[in-house]
Amino acid sequence: MTRAPNMPPPISEEWPAICLVRPQMGENIGAAARVMLNFGLVSLRLVAPRDRWPNPKAEVVAVGADEVLRRARVDWRLEDALMDATLVLAATARPRGMEKPVWGPRQAAANIRAAITAGERPVVMFGPEAAGLESDEVARADAILTLPVNPGFASLNLANAVAVFAYACAEARQGADTPPWFRDSESPPATQAELEALFTHLEEELDRGRFFHPPDKAPLMKRNLRALFLRARLTDQEARTLRGVIKALTIGRGGRKKQDG
Amino acid sequence: MTRAPNMPPPISEEWPAICLVRPQMGENIGAAARVMLNFGLVSLRLVAPRDRWPNPKAEVVAVGADEVLRRARVDWRLEDALMDATLVLAATARPRGMEKPVWGPRQAAANIRAAITAGERPVVMFGPEAAGLESDEVARADAILTLPVNPGFASLNLANAVAVFAYACAEARQGADTPPWFRDSESPPATQAELEALFTHLEEELDRGRFFHPPDKAPLMKRNLRALFLRARLTDQEARTLRGVIKALTIGRGGRKKQDG
Repeated sequence: MTRAPNMPPPISEEWPAICLVRPQMGENIGAAARVMLNFGLVSLRLVAPRDRWPNPKAEVVAVGADEVLRRARVDWRLEDALMDATLVLAATARPRGMEKPVWGPRQAAANIRAAITAGERPVVMFGPEAAGLESDEVARADAILTLPVNPGFASLNLANAVAVFAYACAEARQGADTPPWFRDSESPPATQAELEALFTHLEEELDRGRFFHPPDKAPLMKRNLRALFLRARLTDQEARTLRGVIKALTIGRGGRKKQDG
Repeated sequence: MTRAPNMPPPISEEWPAICLVRPQMGENIGAAARVMLNFGLVSLRLVAPRDRWPNPKAEVVAVGADEVLRRARVDWRLEDALMDATLVLAATARPRGMEKPVWGPRQAAANIRAAITAGERPVVMFGPEAAGLESDEVARADAILTLPVNPGFASLNLANAVAVFAYACAEARQGADTPPWFRDSESPPATQAELEALFTHLEEELDRGRFFHPPDKAPLMKRNLRALFLRARLTDQEARTLRGVIKALTIGRGGRKKQDG
């Protein structure tokens, strides 16, 4: 894959590992691998996959994430797959009357992040399509990962479930506090002086077009117009563009003015 | 579907609508419908799907979400699909040098939630597999939805992208972070149709003023102008006001045009 020289490096996080327990369809394994790598996770574990492994169907769907598949660890017993884990989560929608903490994706990702920082090795189990994890599989977990699904339609596609969790991990990695209203711009914001020049230009031309009537409404109309443009948070380039717009719109009028005078 | 008597009722949210633009594979449409319903979203719009519609492949993959497919609205032009939208997001990974707010899923979901509460009709566009949305499709958006993907492996499966966004919507619905971005107004937001009429009016008049030169720059110039006004999130009153502004600025030109003719 070619990357622009100024592109940030790819992300490749060993932890948490994603553990697919008794997965059935190769396509779902491949799709899970792809979306793991989409969000920077690279450790895949398979427990007793139904079909032979390696699985060509998984490879087709994984697209560029073949490395995740190649490195996938395959075990036949869950306890082997979890051997080195120090924190185990079970993804399951159903409450099982077990005394375990239940975490949403955000909370799970934050806790896992903290655990990794402390040197832990977290593994998150996802059950097979349709059936999900069995009770004694869930019983091995330190905590339950539950997705906020529709009670009327809770059965998630396996890769979609992994997608949501992997996304939550990526958010936790970045640090949750992205600025609330952020705009990527090459151009610096317009200064107050540039905005004032723009507004004055616009208002003068609108005066000539008898826009501000009745006259006692003029201050309010001007204020509303200014508010609208201020809300757009113009760059200096845009302020210049808008002055060009006003010129282009009024260009024919110059002629008329000369006739008037 | 049978539900236990103590189960909460299914969730079925009309807004936001998910708009798949030029989707290719029926399987992906079905998978998107399924995961929408998993997280309580039911309004699907398709713009120019590659294959015939209804699509049996979509139905197989949608599993229990056939209702979402049956109710899906199909348009051949994006502007028709967005006609009634008052807030449009474009899901895209690539920065395009456009002056638009860029939101992560969480932020987008919070803003959309607040908008819905205020009576708005938000639509989120997802582009076709592999290629993604084109620049002039993105140009129609009020804001960009960007997922925090791995810079080394950014290309998400369509349904997984929808999954992450739909999940974020479910989180926003349940938990209430206060909306970071929203504007309380007595006047309803302008619809896409009103905005389109405004832009067309402005561009026609600017064409007459020979604003768009060199001609090969015209599409970019138009896109940048639209972006600036979209960012202001105009009310319908403001859209009308701006049309009045254009009329007032060009009023003298009518005379010149007659002289010309």
